[in-house]
Amino acid sequence: MGFRITRKATASWSGTASEGQGRLGFGSGAFEGIYTEKARVVDGEPIANPEEMIGAALAGCFTMSVADLLSKAGNPPQQLDTTARVVLEQTDTGFAITRIELDTVGQAEGVDEAAFVAAAEQARATCPIAKALAGPQITLQARLQS
Amino acid sequence: MGFRITRKATASWSGTASEGQGRLGFGSGAFEGIYTEKARVVDGEPIANPEEMIGAALAGCFTMSVADLLSKAGNPPQQLDTTARVVLEQTDTGFAITRIELDTVGQAEGVDEAAFVAAAEQARATCPIAKALAGPQITLQARLQS
Repeated sequence: MGFRITRKATASWSGTASEGQGRLGFGSGAFEGIYTEKARVVDGEPIANPEEMIGAALAGCFTMSVADLLSKAGNPPQQLDTTARVVLEQTDTGFAITRIELDTVGQAEGVDEAAFVAAAEQARATCPIAKALAGPQITLQARLQS
Repeated sequence: MGFRITRKATASWSGTASEGQGRLGFGSGAFEGIYTEKARVVDGEPIANPEEMIGAALAGCFTMSVADLLSKAGNPPQQLDTTARVVLEQTDTGFAITRIELDTVGQAEGVDEAAFVAAAEQARATCPIAKALAGPQITLQARLQS
């Protein structure tokens, strides 16, 4: 039997969407906190929102996958830094995540720019979170830092 | 011009996938912490992993959407509680999230079971995170608590 693992998370809510609030929690216990509609649609509040969680999940999965691909080719990276930008917008069929932009910078001895970009492209196409996110377009910028 | 907002998250990594580690951060500042491959594939570690972030994002978006649908029908919920279970498994084409199970329980005066289940089904089909997650099957169990 192949590898199979189940991860858990919880969400609660009380009241209307606009005036109520809820709580979000990771099954691991690593995070638990409130969320509100206002914090979701107004930038700058230090309150978690589902869109940045999608961004963190994708950035994390993608970055670990790049490290894995470089390591298997004999060159574990000294450092990888990735930013994900998740775009939520009103479309003809309601609110939708239309685009996620990944921007990754690597430091990896023995790896040239072409090999780094190829590993990043492969990670973007094959990491489990990227495959799960079949809805939005996922763009990628990848570069090595000298 | 319609509503459009960009949310940010960051991920870093250093070393091999199996022995290195990285950090994940939400743009809002609500969460920042380490992640490792071991914590991702071994259950029970109090360390964040991308799969539970996907679960929290979906549970949060879905639950807020149920609250919105019930409120627009005149019955804001007293309480909604949702659990998401995210299944990661090895498939013929590599690791994939094959299934996410949502389980939601509501307390909402003036709402009968059929109306509650209908609102939950609609939220599952239309909330932005569910639409973005076109990869895995998303199942739903919804019930009212008397």
